[in-house]
Amino acid sequence: MMSATRETNSAGFRRFDAGGATLEQLGEAELLRRLTSIALEAGAGAELVLPAGDDAAVWRVAAGMDVVLSQDAIVEGEDFRRGWTDPEEVGERALHVAISDLAGMGAQPRLGMVTLCASPATQVEDLLAVQRGLCGAALGAGCRVAGGDVSAIQGPLVVDVSVLGTVPPDRALRRDRGRPGDLLVVTGHLGGAAAGLRILTEDLPATPPARERWLARQLRPTARIAEGLALTELGVACAGDLSDGLLVDVGRIIEASRCGAELWVESLPVDAELPQVLGDRWLEAAIGGGEDFELVAAVAPERLPAVLDGWGADLVPLQVVGRLDLGPGLRLRDREGGAAVPLPPILSRHFRQP
Amino acid sequence: MMSATRETNSAGFRRFDAGGATLEQLGEAELLRRLTSIALEAGAGAELVLPAGDDAAVWRVAAGMDVVLSQDAIVEGEDFRRGWTDPEEVGERALHVAISDLAGMGAQPRLGMVTLCASPATQVEDLLAVQRGLCGAALGAGCRVAGGDVSAIQGPLVVDVSVLGTVPPDRALRRDRGRPGDLLVVTGHLGGAAAGLRILTEDLPATPPARERWLARQLRPTARIAEGLALTELGVACAGDLSDGLLVDVGRIIEASRCGAELWVESLPVDAELPQVLGDRWLEAAIGGGEDFELVAAVAPERLPAVLDGWGADLVPLQVVGRLDLGPGLRLRDREGGAAVPLPPILSRHFRQP
Repeated sequence: MMSATRETNSAGFRRFDAGGATLEQLGEAELLRRLTSIALEAGAGAELVLPAGDDAAVWRVAAGMDVVLSQDAIVEGEDFRRGWTDPEEVGERALHVAISDLAGMGAQPRLGMVTLCASPATQVEDLLAVQRGLCGAALGAGCRVAGGDVSAIQGPLVVDVSVLGTVPPDRALRRDRGRPGDLLVVTGHLGGAAAGLRILTEDLPATPPARERWLARQLRPTARIAEGLALTELGVACAGDLSDGLLVDVGRIIEASRCGAELWVESLPVDAELPQVLGDRWLEAAIGGGEDFELVAAVAPERLPAVLDGWGADLVPLQVVGRLDLGPGLRLRDREGGAAVPLPPILSRHFRQP
Repeated sequence: MMSATRETNSAGFRRFDAGGATLEQLGEAELLRRLTSIALEAGAGAELVLPAGDDAAVWRVAAGMDVVLSQDAIVEGEDFRRGWTDPEEVGERALHVAISDLAGMGAQPRLGMVTLCASPATQVEDLLAVQRGLCGAALGAGCRVAGGDVSAIQGPLVVDVSVLGTVPPDRALRRDRGRPGDLLVVTGHLGGAAAGLRILTEDLPATPPARERWLARQLRPTARIAEGLALTELGVACAGDLSDGLLVDVGRIIEASRCGAELWVESLPVDAELPQVLGDRWLEAAIGGGEDFELVAAVAPERLPAVLDGWGADLVPLQVVGRLDLGPGLRLRDREGGAAVPLPPILSRHFRQP
């Protein structure tokens, strides 16, 4: 037993470090879920059309105007290392990581703010370069940087970006709008960012041009803003971004939409070089690797032809990769109607298949 | 000379750590100014009624609806230490520090988001307590927490809060609306937070009840939301919050309003104990110590009676402390029309008097 006088202060509050599970033991995803619960208990839903828990929250600021809000940090040592990249790219990446949540909501980014925490010995020119990269990337996405904060830190560089976007009322792409029978479509290619990370951390022996492509996917991701806008314009209601990989992000859709899903391995859009370089582990990168920042949407089968027809030539391609169903859970097949495929061992440790 | 191949990457970008001035050498305020310039060059003004550079930015999201935006981080080791406080208080403080900028704009806080960066060994219960403190303080200010992010960090705890408030169109309290002849008024009492910090860091020998009051001012500040709203409702146009101390924040007003000012030492609202405990250094705490999170406003003399008359009994008191004039710069007098007072030595190192 620890004494109450040491563990609480005069107001009866609990002191820091009184014991219990650590962040490492719990994991960031579960912590975020618990933090969201606390916010919801404190009435976060009252101001919001869609409270925390989707890619982003939706605030009806005025009649006819829904504002979509999100905030994402990248941290040196966790999300990037100085030797991998340069400060402009860190700024660009921080902006795209943050607005990817707006893409997953079908919103047009409008404004961002950024906090930079940097050690006192950090070179000013590096921080200005982060800001230049961030503001340049924002401008490219039709968004402006409205302000922010700077703080010293005895620790790694933190770039924390909050973003606001707009969407017509009730048109935000939501995770809870999927229905059994909807086809799952993804934008672009999967697994490149995970392969890029393995080039950086494990010296994965990839050769050009795949090597450069995968490094770019990891270090210079592009949020799929135009694709998210196109999905809403084409009448799609359910989508999310692939920040944590197809398995996790489809898992979020089926949880919110209270249904199941199957994914078809042979339909997954991956570079031809991915199986060549990664061998048996290509599937793990394609469905378990995060940070591709593509989108996944659930589209009613009767609407799919119109979506494919209306899909602009300037957008990254759409690919059908599976279907929502009655479940249970999320399952893999080699193709539609084909044989069941077990989850790669490293993923089955994290994701239980029913 | 450093070689170009080592200092730039294939895209011609500058690598990290190529040399130059450090954050410590430049200072956070000057860095923030340069970061703001970069954002403005990238067109930040285009979306904004009032761009970065005031307490907060103002976005006209729809006709009849101005949204005020700000973001502020508190960092362990810089803004608080674990031994001083408990996690609920850290969350409360982070929220009040962030919404104080909205108070300085006369805005009603509506939504916030928070990023927590914590070392993997951080106890989950501490982080949940931070969130509880933050959400509870938000609710008390009429504001909800709409989401945020969590990240591991090999370093200190970071609590970075972005906030949105609303204000009737063109009614935000701006730093650039002061005119020579306007009287400077402040809310509440000054110097308590600085005295509290000295109790914590230097064991300043204060006795109850001043000791508890000053510790509370440092550890549990209260943003002056109701006072900011009252100022706008009473027709005041120019104000800001006192996050960095009266000298710095009045300095910002006279820079933005292109005028000068004088402050009257005998009018400064300070606790009677402040000169008793701090001796000659009380003035330094009152005008140079930041973090009181009171407000300073510039009020036309013909409007002052109506402002004092309409000032609610539930609000902290208003006190006239000086006047805007033609300058040059910011000067101290013992009283209106009285003798010039030199800046305390420690402050004159930072602030040049003309």
